[in-house]
Amino acid sequence: MLRKLCIFGVGLIGGSLSLALRRAGYCREVVGCSRSEGHLSRAVELNVIDSYCLDPAEAVQDADMVLLAVPLGAMGPVCEAFRHSLAADAVITDVGSAKASVVRAVTDAFGEAPASFVPGHPIAGNEQSGVEAAFPELFQGRRVILTPLANTREDARDKVRAMWEVAGAVVEEMGVEHHDEVLAATSHLPHLLAFGLVDSLARMGEREEIFHYAAGGFRDFTRIASSDPVMWRDICLANSEAILKVMTHYQQDLDSITRAVQEGDGKRLLEIFQRAKSARDRFCH
Amino acid sequence: MLRKLCIFGVGLIGGSLSLALRRAGYCREVVGCSRSEGHLSRAVELNVIDSYCLDPAEAVQDADMVLLAVPLGAMGPVCEAFRHSLAADAVITDVGSAKASVVRAVTDAFGEAPASFVPGHPIAGNEQSGVEAAFPELFQGRRVILTPLANTREDARDKVRAMWEVAGAVVEEMGVEHHDEVLAATSHLPHLLAFGLVDSLARMGEREEIFHYAAGGFRDFTRIASSDPVMWRDICLANSEAILKVMTHYQQDLDSITRAVQEGDGKRLLEIFQRAKSARDRFCH
Repeated sequence: MLRKLCIFGVGLIGGSLSLALRRAGYCREVVGCSRSEGHLSRAVELNVIDSYCLDPAEAVQDADMVLLAVPLGAMGPVCEAFRHSLAADAVITDVGSAKASVVRAVTDAFGEAPASFVPGHPIAGNEQSGVEAAFPELFQGRRVILTPLANTREDARDKVRAMWEVAGAVVEEMGVEHHDEVLAATSHLPHLLAFGLVDSLARMGEREEIFHYAAGGFRDFTRIASSDPVMWRDICLANSEAILKVMTHYQQDLDSITRAVQEGDGKRLLEIFQRAKSARDRFCH
Repeated sequence: MLRKLCIFGVGLIGGSLSLALRRAGYCREVVGCSRSEGHLSRAVELNVIDSYCLDPAEAVQDADMVLLAVPLGAMGPVCEAFRHSLAADAVITDVGSAKASVVRAVTDAFGEAPASFVPGHPIAGNEQSGVEAAFPELFQGRRVILTPLANTREDARDKVRAMWEVAGAVVEEMGVEHHDEVLAATSHLPHLLAFGLVDSLARMGEREEIFHYAAGGFRDFTRIASSDPVMWRDICLANSEAILKVMTHYQQDLDSITRAVQEGDGKRLLEIFQRAKSARDRFCH
């Protein structure tokens, strides 16, 4: 049970967690904080949070849980702004899609990584964003990955784990670096490919016409290209090393597919397509 | 109203058209033909077609409409097998995803393009295949592109158009080459990218683990990688020229995204992502 949860960034993720915890009666009070009073008052209006506060230092007062749900680039500045006002028993966690950069930002802001800081990442969300898209079931059955540091206090980790479990999530743990590599492959790279394809087609001639003939497969494939551009710019900058590694791999594989098409090598194409289909059918049923 | 429709390849597309036309009472008789008696008897069992016949020459007898719904590589051989048994008033159409190759195959089989041949392509379907996946609403509101040739008879074109309209489709016309370029961009390229990504990840170490952490975005993005490998091998071979053209474009754009990530060029990334999001939101709402 939480006394006061302070959420920085009340969008799809922060808002949905608030809805889930409040519905479960797990939180006496949820206070939102961000730079946009419009968004915050809309969140109160939609009954997603109890109240809001524009001053980070004031927002965290008496909070026993602080959730950082802002774009990656804002993690550091937010911590700077509230670090002197934190209650002694406050636990800090975040929902950033790339963990090494958040750890760096929080460490820099506090001078060292606070023992009460538990980096986290819910593998949930969709191409929508903003508090209007929030709903309490978002985390039901979804994974949340925690990447605790060497000095992270066990009770802090348990508190964050318990919070996500109340929201319906399955909590797992792994190392920061490993998280960033896995997510570069399964999330960051696909987003880049989809953004890239839509942009590539949009800049070709007759773009209206091209999209006109796009079928369901194209819609599914490019759904993630409707994601929030600022959030994804930040992810690309924050996890560039792991992204570039997996991108290099992928571009090499794409070259070899291109060569097979060029050479009319049906055997090779069939081999690749069959391997891909069987992997996907097996893991994404 | 059709007297007898003969469908070569009773899978998702051929089966769904049969279901739609029979439900509308538009067809006195639908006969299926393919190389697999097992598939055909299943199609009769599921009440998708009235009867089947394993001999192409016998199957087309008295048919006033012949639908070629086999993989692209089988179009030529099928035409060879029935060309001498065709009724005088029979119209031939197909559902191939690349039109130039079908036109070539049919022209080669008949010695010249029959005036009763109307190349067609329903922009419908999903990652499933086989008659079990067929359903009569598949073409409801979907586009069907006809690419009639210079010598195509007007009454043949009208008959094919009417048939698709009964199935609920919106029929449009364009040139063969233009069709193949548009589809290379909106369908063939995305399929190659998705097959390539899943295969790329599947061949990395710890593949079980990587897919384990894939979220909804990844599932949507890679859904088309569960498509039929043989069908897609044939499409790649049949439309290689247009595919390579758009692939080259895309790989250049991907290189420039990779460079922006390398250089930490957030401005450039944001620009690309915003342009892509606004294009997708506009055309795929």
